[in-house]
Amino acid sequence: MTQQTAADKPTSIVIFGASGDLTHRKLIPAVFNLFRKHRLPEKFFIIGSARTPMDDDAFRKALLDGVKQFASYQYTDQEWEAFASHLSYHAGDFTAEGEEHKLAQYLAEQEAGPADRLYYLATPPKFFPGIAAALGRANMLSEAEGFRRIVLEKPFGTDLKSALALSEQLHQVMSEQQIYRIDHYLGKETVQNMLVFRFANGIFEPIWNRNYVDHVQISALEQVGLEHRAGYYDGVGVVRDMFQNHMLALLTLVAMEPPASFNATPLRNERAKVLSAVRPIRPDRLGQETVRGQYAGYRQEDGVAPDSQTPTYAAMRFYVDNWRWQGVPFFLRSGKKLKEKRTEIIIQFKKPPHAMFPDAAVDSMPANVLAICLTPDEGIHLRFDAKVPDTVAGMRPVDMDFTYADAFGPRSIPEAYERLLLDALHGDQSLFNRNDQVELAWQLLDPVIAGWEAPGGPPLAMYEPGGYGPDEADELMLRNGRAWLRGGCGKDLTTGAAEK
Amino acid sequence: MTQQTAADKPTSIVIFGASGDLTHRKLIPAVFNLFRKHRLPEKFFIIGSARTPMDDDAFRKALLDGVKQFASYQYTDQEWEAFASHLSYHAGDFTAEGEEHKLAQYLAEQEAGPADRLYYLATPPKFFPGIAAALGRANMLSEAEGFRRIVLEKPFGTDLKSALALSEQLHQVMSEQQIYRIDHYLGKETVQNMLVFRFANGIFEPIWNRNYVDHVQISALEQVGLEHRAGYYDGVGVVRDMFQNHMLALLTLVAMEPPASFNATPLRNERAKVLSAVRPIRPDRLGQETVRGQYAGYRQEDGVAPDSQTPTYAAMRFYVDNWRWQGVPFFLRSGKKLKEKRTEIIIQFKKPPHAMFPDAAVDSMPANVLAICLTPDEGIHLRFDAKVPDTVAGMRPVDMDFTYADAFGPRSIPEAYERLLLDALHGDQSLFNRNDQVELAWQLLDPVIAGWEAPGGPPLAMYEPGGYGPDEADELMLRNGRAWLRGGCGKDLTTGAAEK
Repeated sequence: MTQQTAADKPTSIVIFGASGDLTHRKLIPAVFNLFRKHRLPEKFFIIGSARTPMDDDAFRKALLDGVKQFASYQYTDQEWEAFASHLSYHAGDFTAEGEEHKLAQYLAEQEAGPADRLYYLATPPKFFPGIAAALGRANMLSEAEGFRRIVLEKPFGTDLKSALALSEQLHQVMSEQQIYRIDHYLGKETVQNMLVFRFANGIFEPIWNRNYVDHVQISALEQVGLEHRAGYYDGVGVVRDMFQNHMLALLTLVAMEPPASFNATPLRNERAKVLSAVRPIRPDRLGQETVRGQYAGYRQEDGVAPDSQTPTYAAMRFYVDNWRWQGVPFFLRSGKKLKEKRTEIIIQFKKPPHAMFPDAAVDSMPANVLAICLTPDEGIHLRFDAKVPDTVAGMRPVDMDFTYADAFGPRSIPEAYERLLLDALHGDQSLFNRNDQVELAWQLLDPVIAGWEAPGGPPLAMYEPGGYGPDEADELMLRNGRAWLRGGCGKDLTTGAAEK
Repeated sequence: MTQQTAADKPTSIVIFGASGDLTHRKLIPAVFNLFRKHRLPEKFFIIGSARTPMDDDAFRKALLDGVKQFASYQYTDQEWEAFASHLSYHAGDFTAEGEEHKLAQYLAEQEAGPADRLYYLATPPKFFPGIAAALGRANMLSEAEGFRRIVLEKPFGTDLKSALALSEQLHQVMSEQQIYRIDHYLGKETVQNMLVFRFANGIFEPIWNRNYVDHVQISALEQVGLEHRAGYYDGVGVVRDMFQNHMLALLTLVAMEPPASFNATPLRNERAKVLSAVRPIRPDRLGQETVRGQYAGYRQEDGVAPDSQTPTYAAMRFYVDNWRWQGVPFFLRSGKKLKEKRTEIIIQFKKPPHAMFPDAAVDSMPANVLAICLTPDEGIHLRFDAKVPDTVAGMRPVDMDFTYADAFGPRSIPEAYERLLLDALHGDQSLFNRNDQVELAWQLLDPVIAGWEAPGGPPLAMYEPGGYGPDEADELMLRNGRAWLRGGCGKDLTTGAAEK
């Protein structure tokens, strides 16, 4: 939390790539909700910038369509009218030498004095360096009269080298404190609740370590395929799209040590510490510890190369080499065209050390499972063994359940972007990635991607759409004496049951 | 588990005091349910014995009325007819010298050969020695031809001296292995589930000790008053009626070490170990560590002495002086004519050691609470802190819930007596009290009762019916820096909220 926006100083939110999908699907609905909740500064401007020629009215109309479709709750025309008056559009190629001053001039006129500014780069990543350079040339990054912050959409680079180069390009014109690398998973309530769950409660931390945890599973399963995004996805694949950011972000939140305070630096230090403790997968072990898959039919999708080697599914086993987690495997998987949309973190605990009950050997006793569900429903489920009534000492796993919908109401959860945009406006970098975090993540995954693509790398495992991914992923678990589990996401399911 | 009843050898269940309340309210409905579930031996007789003159038909009719009113589920006339054919009645004063042989003869005729026998003493306790002696005189306790077991209803003595004397009287004619001292709380599913919960799961035992538990509350609150039982209750009071057996039984199950196996001897050893580790309350500290209460209007009840000092409410603080529990207070309370019927065990854990969240000092953070509900609904509730959606780091206690009704169906829980009768038939003494347990309990409570009744003892705290007992009980908690809590029993309540 650095400066707070004073009521008399306007705030400009400048969206680059304002004619794109993200703007009308996510950003504007999120900002509009913040407006409705009276969380925006009193004086604010939202300026769309893109090359598409469009006037303010056309821009507003396009955004209204998005809000109608994607805003997470009811609103009135009156609210939209009030909000829309803050919206304007500036057409032009901002990165073209000489053009940058036009936007600078446009903003200065609107603001009519000192102002705070948030630049949101909702463009394809290839434009990031050009936009940053143009912002620098036009002196739009000096914080003399107000904050100047830049929010960057993923992916941040495509490997360690490009990420380092991008950070260096940005640092030439701005400081790291001005940079907000977004990972929208960190804006999700359930993800943030991980920290509250672990550190605002006294009873979980004592068992949150190698003495009691058998293993961790982090799954982000998607039902959808490419959704017309072949241009972005093909050649990128699931590791760059999901693992480098979201999957490793979830891993850090599960594994991190308690920070001294809930502020950006200590939080990001702890998350970086986890990443630096993750054991890199040895190139000669890729066949044993990773699975790369592609769904049957992927190469026939529009815009995909007919011989594409792009993985649409990956599973990996990691270890976190530190005092707390030594020997505890973390299994991560994500893929497209699977049976269900489900994102969850599963902590499987060790079995009790001794079976004192008749007819129940330790081997046959189910382990405790804690499931943190992000999708489809947000909640926490704990599987434990209970006595079956009307038996001598029969036992059965049962669930203790908590769901956000039950506790806080069905519409209580805001979109991830709301929180992240507000944090950026407030100068809180806690839920954004620092350069070292991004670099550590690439450092872990570069060798995986390189090894997969190298001659003699593990073969691409094909899988049928509508299942749970390639058989090789089940075999990975089997070799480790485990199985992919399902959490309690969805009322009718039992936490910790084997998926297949 | 000693002998199993062979299919060809009949089993007689002889109920002394068969014309009484317990027989038709609890025993016969329980035995009938066991019959319906095909859990009784193939050949069995149920013989009622009491002084009231009655023929078999009158006896059966009286029991049918009880079954209609108290059997926990639907039954058919056909089932009852089949069951009733096993019922017979033998009138007479069994304890009168010379009369005992009549019943012995009656049984021998029915059994027509070797048989197993369970003697159920559903009489007032003053008849226990006489019945035992008569059983001895008539050679009805020799196990030469089948088991001979005796089930004794509470209370077992009225103090240590009388309990020792009673055990000695019993041991003159039978061994401790033949004696089943019943505490029907131990037949309750939720109570047995305590052991499964603690020892079939790996994640609770690590935090089940002084490092993580702040204190324990055990409450057995009743709405009812005397219910025409003044003859039994006045002069006995809540300590002998509830604490010596039920309350201390629950304490032992919460506090005991894991036994090596789930058999009678290890289980009863561990429970006895807890009782022998409970620190006796010093007579000069009774005013600080106990509360004795009586509800306003008690002395006006039918059959109560107009100057009765009988406590209808008690609260006590105990410590278990062993490695695991040193310094953790156990607060026990029970009373009549209170606001609600509620029996629960509450484990309040310590607060997290460090508050890292903004606006949340450790002092203001709620502690985790685990509530094990016995009444009104059977379940387990865990209070933990969750992030409030749509706030930066707002937190609120929420509940993770498990209820037996949800997991196993609304009618899944049998009556406590079913289980206990079956265990007695199977020769499993696990859930019955051994003499040393009973004696240890009296040893703890005798000084309390004596100190209360002595001149200069703490005054009797009067309380209004319909509340939560005397103010003095709240002050007891306040002096200890705690408050009486409610668990999650009842859907609309929040686990761990202060009661007042």
